[in-house]
Amino acid sequence: MTDSIRISVDAMGGDHGPRVAVHGARLALKERKNTSFIFHGRSAEIAPLLEEYPELKPVSRIVHNDNVISMDEKPSQALRKGRNNSSMWAAIQSVKDGEADVAISGGNTGALMAMATFCLRPMEGISRPAIAAIWPTIRTDIIVLDVGATVGGDAKQLVDFSILGAALARALFDQEAPTIGLLNVGTEEMKGHDEVKEAARILGEASGAGFVYHGFVEGDDIGKGTVDVVVTEGFAGNIALKTAEGTARQVGTYIRNALKADIVSMLGAAIAGQALQALKRKLDPRNINGGVFLGLNGIVIKSHGGTDEIGFKAALGLGYEMARSRVLDKIGEGMRRFPTLTTQGSANDPEPEAKPA
Amino acid sequence: MTDSIRISVDAMGGDHGPRVAVHGARLALKERKNTSFIFHGRSAEIAPLLEEYPELKPVSRIVHNDNVISMDEKPSQALRKGRNNSSMWAAIQSVKDGEADVAISGGNTGALMAMATFCLRPMEGISRPAIAAIWPTIRTDIIVLDVGATVGGDAKQLVDFSILGAALARALFDQEAPTIGLLNVGTEEMKGHDEVKEAARILGEASGAGFVYHGFVEGDDIGKGTVDVVVTEGFAGNIALKTAEGTARQVGTYIRNALKADIVSMLGAAIAGQALQALKRKLDPRNINGGVFLGLNGIVIKSHGGTDEIGFKAALGLGYEMARSRVLDKIGEGMRRFPTLTTQGSANDPEPEAKPA
Repeated sequence: MTDSIRISVDAMGGDHGPRVAVHGARLALKERKNTSFIFHGRSAEIAPLLEEYPELKPVSRIVHNDNVISMDEKPSQALRKGRNNSSMWAAIQSVKDGEADVAISGGNTGALMAMATFCLRPMEGISRPAIAAIWPTIRTDIIVLDVGATVGGDAKQLVDFSILGAALARALFDQEAPTIGLLNVGTEEMKGHDEVKEAARILGEASGAGFVYHGFVEGDDIGKGTVDVVVTEGFAGNIALKTAEGTARQVGTYIRNALKADIVSMLGAAIAGQALQALKRKLDPRNINGGVFLGLNGIVIKSHGGTDEIGFKAALGLGYEMARSRVLDKIGEGMRRFPTLTTQGSANDPEPEAKPA
Repeated sequence: MTDSIRISVDAMGGDHGPRVAVHGARLALKERKNTSFIFHGRSAEIAPLLEEYPELKPVSRIVHNDNVISMDEKPSQALRKGRNNSSMWAAIQSVKDGEADVAISGGNTGALMAMATFCLRPMEGISRPAIAAIWPTIRTDIIVLDVGATVGGDAKQLVDFSILGAALARALFDQEAPTIGLLNVGTEEMKGHDEVKEAARILGEASGAGFVYHGFVEGDDIGKGTVDVVVTEGFAGNIALKTAEGTARQVGTYIRNALKADIVSMLGAAIAGQALQALKRKLDPRNINGGVFLGLNGIVIKSHGGTDEIGFKAALGLGYEMARSRVLDKIGEGMRRFPTLTTQGSANDPEPEAKPA
């Protein structure tokens, strides 16, 4: 099992208990054989599930923990109660201790972010972490961040997010110099907060250092795939993400209703069944499940709390790819190449250590 | 022509010149007979178009103006250059002078907002205007504002927008007490800016004064139609609107591609043709064209600059309904009923003038 990717799972997170996590792991293992799992949570509930999946059991280990962070707990409460002693914390701690390459939880997002930040700490030079979403577009998958870690944020933070997002694009999509766009509004009058304008200036000057700064993009540029990485603060990003999910679901409802409006439509839909099934898969939110916590000294993936084993499998697959592609190394690289973040270097001097004497 | 609704049209606004405006008016007149039009712009271009539509000509008047505000002019420039002397300004001035009930332009949004604000002035008690979108949902049409007039905004502004949105819902949808939701993010940790929290407190206390305060809503609640009015500041609102448009277009592309993937799918699509046509109409952005400027002493509608006559017709129809339903009166009513905005009244005293001696 050389080079196996070791995934630490908070088996108690999510609305549906450990079955989703364990069943999801079984499906993920089918797709990526060289994976091993550590399941954190109530052993009495997890062990019988592993018995059901003989192919999963040999690559799995259970670390018992009785304490479960509930979905409605406030992050500060969760941290007080569950620090050092909850399935969620233990899953993250496995990454810190080097026992796992990535941690995954379907639990309370705020609690997970608080614990991950507290346990793994922000990377040097990064002020606050972000949550990145892998967003399907007409062109190809792109990255949108922050979709919900921080409300507001200054120019420095938006620049940090750009470095993080570019590194993720380099890692996941194998792009040498991904294009970056700053999410903004359209009308000339109001073009953006001061923070967005200042971030644009910094990114414009640094363009070329591992990314290409494209300029401002608007909400409809996300679905078009105008750039590889869309950067914004967490409030607008979360609203964009949720609004897109809502719209996709809304249009899905329209399609279903239209195609069962009368017998002729139903016949047509039956004949075009395969195409419509493919479409349904494409619109299935479970297949794009998983928010990536970026900017910490370790990788943590948030799975949607309400998802099933198909969705959890997708989040595990994402975690696997994050670990395999060495995203943390790529972030470090990106930071070293970024001119204004290195106190000693300049735009033409990617190695700050190489300062002339 | 008693009770005819008089629409003032900036015939030179938009990407495609006066043909779209005049042709759109002809289509709008077919749907709503008791409409009359004032077309502002270059007479030499507009007059020949009216000759083409003999049914439109008798209810139309041309007010010549040579100056056209271009799409890329900055609002401040546009205001300097076009104040008192441009087709855009003249269209708004007609409303101010009482010659028209509503003004419509497909021109530069920032310039239109600047000119409308300068010419019509904000209503007493309203600090800044908002742009409201009529948003189709699974349940029914709802109102989302602000979708692009102001970046940022304090609690008072969000409360103002709530009063404006509720009045628009009462006017357009004939709802006695529309439900209001404040757009926010999901995770407990970061629940909103301080401004959103403070606005929630004020709205909670005032709930019942012409609206029902529902609480926070998330991006996916928009498409679900969870509330009748979704309130947010212009940055997040614009991003939500554009992201939804982009997502709808993206899913539309998926549908088209799926249904022409092979001969069987094409056959099925042909048979379900009527249903798919209905679906296409439902997803057609032209049918929901028109942003409403709210909070000024007069009604102005922004039509999408790139739309065609079908889209312009929709914006004209929206303007007609706004005028017919006396939305300005309803806003005034809503403000008088709102407790914290009346310095002399209280929640139980909707008539501030009736102060006990």
